[in-house]
Amino acid sequence: MAAAVLACDWGTTNLRAWTLDAEGRPLQHREFPFGVSTLKPGEAADRFAEVQAALAAENLPAILCGMVGSNLGWQVAPYVDCPADLADVGEAMIEVVPGVRIAPGLRTRGIGGAPDVMRGEETQVLGWLSQHVERRHGRHVILHPGTHAKWVVVEDGRITRFVTVMTGELFSVLRRHSVLRDDAEPDDAAAFDLGVAAAGDGGALAARLFTARGRVVGGGRPASETPSYLSGLLIGAELAGAPALLGLSTHHSVNLLGDAALCARYARALQARSVIYQTYDGEEAAVAGLFALHRTEASHDA
Amino acid sequence: MAAAVLACDWGTTNLRAWTLDAEGRPLQHREFPFGVSTLKPGEAADRFAEVQAALAAENLPAILCGMVGSNLGWQVAPYVDCPADLADVGEAMIEVVPGVRIAPGLRTRGIGGAPDVMRGEETQVLGWLSQHVERRHGRHVILHPGTHAKWVVVEDGRITRFVTVMTGELFSVLRRHSVLRDDAEPDDAAAFDLGVAAAGDGGALAARLFTARGRVVGGGRPASETPSYLSGLLIGAELAGAPALLGLSTHHSVNLLGDAALCARYARALQARSVIYQTYDGEEAAVAGLFALHRTEASHDA
Repeated sequence: MAAAVLACDWGTTNLRAWTLDAEGRPLQHREFPFGVSTLKPGEAADRFAEVQAALAAENLPAILCGMVGSNLGWQVAPYVDCPADLADVGEAMIEVVPGVRIAPGLRTRGIGGAPDVMRGEETQVLGWLSQHVERRHGRHVILHPGTHAKWVVVEDGRITRFVTVMTGELFSVLRRHSVLRDDAEPDDAAAFDLGVAAAGDGGALAARLFTARGRVVGGGRPASETPSYLSGLLIGAELAGAPALLGLSTHHSVNLLGDAALCARYARALQARSVIYQTYDGEEAAVAGLFALHRTEASHDA
Repeated sequence: MAAAVLACDWGTTNLRAWTLDAEGRPLQHREFPFGVSTLKPGEAADRFAEVQAALAAENLPAILCGMVGSNLGWQVAPYVDCPADLADVGEAMIEVVPGVRIAPGLRTRGIGGAPDVMRGEETQVLGWLSQHVERRHGRHVILHPGTHAKWVVVEDGRITRFVTVMTGELFSVLRRHSVLRDDAEPDDAAAFDLGVAAAGDGGALAARLFTARGRVVGGGRPASETPSYLSGLLIGAELAGAPALLGLSTHHSVNLLGDAALCARYARALQARSVIYQTYDGEEAAVAGLFALHRTEASHDA
């Protein structure tokens, strides 16, 4: 079947591109190392032309999502305020060159009314909603783990609110730059589980973090356990603290959506906390979301 | 009056040395840049000889405290377990060369029974206790701000328990290495106060931290406010969360003990939370503690 659209998730560190047929099925997939953090001013258009050429997609309509729509990217696609659904995001896309559109991110009133934002995850969530018609009814909680994890509440097909948790970034900076730094891989399941337990109710995180140090220098545990313990502690604290910020009871279930390895880590912590969950592939959802946005465009053109 | 003792606080980043007279009054003070983090293996004795020579203190008894007693320092002075008082710490000092003694750090059962540790702060707390006889009765809470802030409970002259909060280190790594990095000085009082308020009950810290990003990219605030806001947020979260970890009510008062500039920052946050506090100079307390430890030695020798 012929390619109908070029779909791109252009984030901070890389660009993932697919050509899709008229039913949204992937035909080709390519990944490029030029995330928006590597772009020189004005370079986005040329880089995108390389992507089009690599996929022989010069004549296809294109939908882009992610940080490409930030002030570090190609052109700013202003945030859409929650609640927002597929049609709202589709209408707010900006056309940067004829036939090439960038999806906006979302903004919500978060903790204490402070603004919270996302760019890219909204497309995965909208894609997840589009993958099965029954998801467009009722309330769902979607957890997208990552550098800046997103907890997203969807009600009757609309993203009503969300909160960002800097779990991945805290893990990264503490593991590399703090007294808790250690080169070991975070693959010690027993130490991870102890970290999850040490998260307790998620309060006093800056004090709980020092237990990762105390157990080594005051308890004789090997420092090589620290990355796994730290990962469990940060994820456990996120699971303990985030639901209340969204007004959710502790009895909600969670739809994990994202990278498989990271979702598996969260799944282990959710199990330890007896939370019901299901895991979904983030890349498939991104493709579905970009295609759904393309279809909103098509319906407007008609 | 003649010098009676050489007192040294030898920490991670520097060494502060005083000669004291027989009443504990400082005669000379010198600071040296060779913290234990800069020491090559086996180098401590030579470096210390430089200190003795610089203060013409080769023939004085010497008392050292801080990280010099860790496995990164001169020789390990094993932790003393809480509860512990001046006599307990004095008895556990180790003699590394004749007349030169290193004070041990303290260990306690912290969050969930996990070990917590300190090295150096115990000497300041013991010094604070020695400065006025009435402090040796009743219960006091001492807050020593820093890279690893210490909340210490003293009861009838004994350090009964403490908890470490990584506030300073989180501030440092986030300010330098995270999406919240910004070169501005953290001297914007209004932004600091907003950060203190944003700390709320101290829960879900990894989510609250992202408000520092959301208010810039989603709220139009200048990024130059971020260091001040971040400082307020982290200190506010510490003040909200630490007391419960020590079984303290929210109605306790706090004795701030440490660096004047850092104590002023904590004082501002304590005021915002309507906590009663008083501030004391950490360096004077360190000198008093080292002298008090010297005196425990003297009484043993007698």
